[in-house]
Amino acid sequence: MTHEGTAPSFHTMWRELEPIGRHSASGGYRRYAWSGADADCRAWFRAQAEARGLDYELDRNGNQWAWLGDPCAGDAVVTGSHLDSVPDGGAFDGPLGVVSSFAALDELRGRSARFTRPLAIVNFGDEEGARFGLACVGSRLAAGELTAEQARRLTDADGITLPQAMEAAGHDPDTIGADPERLARIGAFVELHVEQGRALDLSGDRVGIASAIWPHGRWRFDFRGEANHAGTTRLVDRRDPMLSYAETVLAARREAQLAGAVATFGKIAVEPNGVNAVPSLVRGWLDSRAADQSTLDTVVTGIETAAREYADAHGIRLDVVRESFTPVVEFEHTLRDEIVRILGKRDDTAASLKVPVLGTGAGHDAGILSGTIPTAMLFVRNPTGVSHSPAEYAAEDDCVAGVTALADVLEGLACS
Amino acid sequence: MTHEGTAPSFHTMWRELEPIGRHSASGGYRRYAWSGADADCRAWFRAQAEARGLDYELDRNGNQWAWLGDPCAGDAVVTGSHLDSVPDGGAFDGPLGVVSSFAALDELRGRSARFTRPLAIVNFGDEEGARFGLACVGSRLAAGELTAEQARRLTDADGITLPQAMEAAGHDPDTIGADPERLARIGAFVELHVEQGRALDLSGDRVGIASAIWPHGRWRFDFRGEANHAGTTRLVDRRDPMLSYAETVLAARREAQLAGAVATFGKIAVEPNGVNAVPSLVRGWLDSRAADQSTLDTVVTGIETAAREYADAHGIRLDVVRESFTPVVEFEHTLRDEIVRILGKRDDTAASLKVPVLGTGAGHDAGILSGTIPTAMLFVRNPTGVSHSPAEYAAEDDCVAGVTALADVLEGLACS
Repeated sequence: MTHEGTAPSFHTMWRELEPIGRHSASGGYRRYAWSGADADCRAWFRAQAEARGLDYELDRNGNQWAWLGDPCAGDAVVTGSHLDSVPDGGAFDGPLGVVSSFAALDELRGRSARFTRPLAIVNFGDEEGARFGLACVGSRLAAGELTAEQARRLTDADGITLPQAMEAAGHDPDTIGADPERLARIGAFVELHVEQGRALDLSGDRVGIASAIWPHGRWRFDFRGEANHAGTTRLVDRRDPMLSYAETVLAARREAQLAGAVATFGKIAVEPNGVNAVPSLVRGWLDSRAADQSTLDTVVTGIETAAREYADAHGIRLDVVRESFTPVVEFEHTLRDEIVRILGKRDDTAASLKVPVLGTGAGHDAGILSGTIPTAMLFVRNPTGVSHSPAEYAAEDDCVAGVTALADVLEGLACS
Repeated sequence: MTHEGTAPSFHTMWRELEPIGRHSASGGYRRYAWSGADADCRAWFRAQAEARGLDYELDRNGNQWAWLGDPCAGDAVVTGSHLDSVPDGGAFDGPLGVVSSFAALDELRGRSARFTRPLAIVNFGDEEGARFGLACVGSRLAAGELTAEQARRLTDADGITLPQAMEAAGHDPDTIGADPERLARIGAFVELHVEQGRALDLSGDRVGIASAIWPHGRWRFDFRGEANHAGTTRLVDRRDPMLSYAETVLAARREAQLAGAVATFGKIAVEPNGVNAVPSLVRGWLDSRAADQSTLDTVVTGIETAAREYADAHGIRLDVVRESFTPVVEFEHTLRDEIVRILGKRDDTAASLKVPVLGTGAGHDAGILSGTIPTAMLFVRNPTGVSHSPAEYAAEDDCVAGVTALADVLEGLACS
């Protein structure tokens, strides 16, 4: 069923995208929203759309669209993902979905498929939230989950606001905001993504279908003590917030382990951050996720309680702020069942008949949009489970299997 | 004995220096070596020298000198300190010594003192090491404790080397290196400094004399794990270096407490430092000091052993690098006894008769120079002991008492 052009089409796009925003020392990607690398990725997307004769659109929130058929006809089938990255992220998280979308379209054209519904490929802006601290800004704005007013207050580490960054990149920040007309035209959104765990590797499958996204959130812990000379201040006279932070890092691991959840302190900011100064402030960010809301509540409450005990015992002031939260996302069953049916009836290989349905701890634009439109996700096997790292990887054969599966799904949904 | 002009002269200088390099949000100082704020401090020093008719010199290592009398006559008495700061440091650490030196000269001129030895006031460059990670660069270079080759390899957080920073500030980096002829002209160096502990506050004295500087050093702990997605990577699959770092922070406090020493992790750098990424690298800097070398060895060995155990247990690679080390400094007894004698015979107030001799955990240019020339230190009371912080403070009366004591010492050493 695979057209012989799929692998070459995929590879050509992959090679073009590969050097953009790659950091030479780390080998990882630094494709931050509205940066130069982001602009290069966007130019690549537009060129791909135009090379295929698709109608290119940039929406008010900085999401890019490539249309085949009339966008206003309604009931469109949309696929795509994002091109931005976490700091020193891998090549696959995001780009695999965008590249696979164009490759799947090429595959369908090779099959001479006849489209009965409009098709669009999308690149959502600022999915990772690496620069402004909030994930899925492009899709949140479109869905009205983030208001224009809230978005205008987002600020990066250099004090640049989101509107300033948009303007510097040539995008008008005055137009951002909910885009219900655009979303109303979409009948289904399917996002393909590299798996970010090892479920497919453990089950021996190339491709899987998402069942749900775990509820997850980010909490900022500000431990405030008193800056002091590290050589001359007696230990008993210190109010050193690094100690409370360290205790809290260990408490987070314990609480998550007990609950079968995950909890991570991966980002920290210290003031004054001098070798010979007791810090005045240690700011740590907690990322925590669990299979259900009540487990997540238990974990985060446990961590915060432990942190307060340590802080109180050492004269440290603790402020905990929930910076973002996404409830559990159960993907729509009708669309999911339809995709299981489409992929299940394929007769090309035995392996492709078996497509497991699995949950994930990662947030995605598909999760944001699932509140408004029927949404589904396909996962491609990740042999190590490593993600958000230069070592993130998927085998070429598995990527091509992903393209074929996506083409089959799009054909089943949008073609006669 | 105090000339009535001392307090006004001190205050005028203090007010001029106060706004330079002060960060409006933190209220602390960011006077980093070879920065714009540093240049402003240097311009202030030069203006003070010229306003007093002193001969101004900038030496090859970026230290500033203001001479009264012939620098080449030999057996000079030198006083001074530094004007740079730690990140968000206080107003007193360094500047108090420089301002007090000029004020003490004004006081001596008011007393119509007759100088029998050359006198110089010095501002040593880059004492805090805030930018290039090594303290006392100016005095270390002059004393040959740091070679020009080693200094040229120093790099700041933005990848700018010390020679590049010097050049950008208009200083020729090709001339740096040991300066034995200059040091050979000096018969005594006396540095006045705000106390960085509470010994004088506890004893009820305004001014003290240093006995010794504790041995101290900086060690960099690099914990290397594997970057990974914080939402999807199972806890058992992680190699998270933040956990080993946290364990080590707590071990450092325990080991220091046991030994009656101090140990601090006040600076940290994390990669990739993303909220939703397990870190690949956590780099923490340990500052540790103790009253003697063998205690310090015990503390640091204990911390490193604990860190290795945690790292090994969690698949973390640990590298520990000693970035700097200063052995114990016992100030020269002849000069110290002479200063005790000078201050002890004063008859102005009862309090000034009693000048305690005390040790300190802080490093100073005086400690570096003590290997080459007779060196002494005066401390001015710090009522809270807080230092390296915007809250660092000394009362005006105590500062003026410090100026008077310094003037008395300089008069006793350099005048007939």
